Amino acid sequence: MQQIEFIKEIDKIKYIERRTKLINSNRRENDAEHSWHLALMVMVLAEHADKPLDILKVLKMVLIHDIVEIDAGDIFIFDTTKTHTNTAAERIAASRIFGLLPKRQATEFMAIWEEFEARETAESKFARSMDRLEPLLQNVSNKGGTWNEFDIEYKQVLEKQSVHQEISASIDKYAKELIEQSVHAGILRKD
Amino acid sequence: MQQIEFIKEIDKIKYIERRTKLINSNRRENDAEHSWHLALMVMVLAEHADKPLDILKVLKMVLIHDIVEIDAGDIFIFDTTKTHTNTAAERIAASRIFGLLPKRQATEFMAIWEEFEARETAESKFARSMDRLEPLLQNVSNKGGTWNEFDIEYKQVLEKQSVHQEISASIDKYAKELIEQSVHAGILRKD
Repeated sequence: MQQIEFIKEIDKIKYIERRTKLINSNRRENDAEHSWHLALMVMVLAEHADKPLDILKVLKMVLIHDIVEIDAGDIFIFDTTKTHTNTAAERIAASRIFGLLPKRQATEFMAIWEEFEARETAESKFARSMDRLEPLLQNVSNKGGTWNEFDIEYKQVLEKQSVHQEISASIDKYAKELIEQSVHAGILRKD
Repeated sequence: MQQIEFIKEIDKIKYIERRTKLINSNRRENDAEHSWHLALMVMVLAEHADKPLDILKVLKMVLIHDIVEIDAGDIFIFDTTKTHTNTAAERIAASRIFGLLPKRQATEFMAIWEEFEARETAESKFARSMDRLEPLLQNVSNKGGTWNEFDIEYKQVLEKQSVHQEISASIDKYAKELIEQSVHAGILRKD
């Protein structure tokens, strides 16, 4: 079975550490845990999307979206020195890792990843919304978390969390309320 | 959004440690990583199933199958002092944790978990096959891994790995070959 090499290779995603820490925790999350959590969020929050979604496609998207980081590493979302979409390193990674699969599957995985990165379809917008909502919940639970650790302020958070409005009015409303509450609670700086 | 409490609660699965270690590694896997890996295996191996599968359902199944372990803990597959299906503790856990969801979703999650545990449908048989194949790959990569650590021998492994034949002749063949090779390589004891 040609897929076995791919299955073994992607085990490495369990070592890719994100900046954000688990809920009420001081332990950093890894990409496997993160991707699993996004998949569960898709399952329970998809009903809040403003447009009908192909749930199977959104699930596949969040499950594979960070596999490229096995080679390319995680880029911190507030790092302004780095570009955040589809870097050359990520494309090379996608082609190497997805390339371990039988050709038809490799093509499908590449297409799903490209669709996620392009953020044009409802599915990719919802996947991106989940990708941003999870660290928001984590940072709030950790009394500011990476916001304080890396001196991030209100406007930056608001900008990164603006993705929800493209796909879900209710998730957008929830995220905005959480941000305002965080300022009020003194865990997010607003100059 | 009623789902938020559920989303925060299931973060705890990232602390539930399995006995099996990551590929070529001395680090134990947690349930979030394990569930993510099974989901990817479903995506790439489903074509080897002998019967047509509802892929979305299999994905949901593997993604939620271990959530009950947040309360009930992980039971080592070769622990003969414990029962492995649907214990009272697991049912109580399912009802508490899935019960954090809106009623319709709680009912859906409970039904999917019950279906997985019952192992009667093609989807649940395939999910179970993935659940057994992953630790096989891990133990082989770790030159015996938990087999040696807990003094497990050939017959026990063969019995646990017999689930594949119910749903995929090619995965069953692959697993059996891997087990024979492990004996031959001296990493699995055969008395």
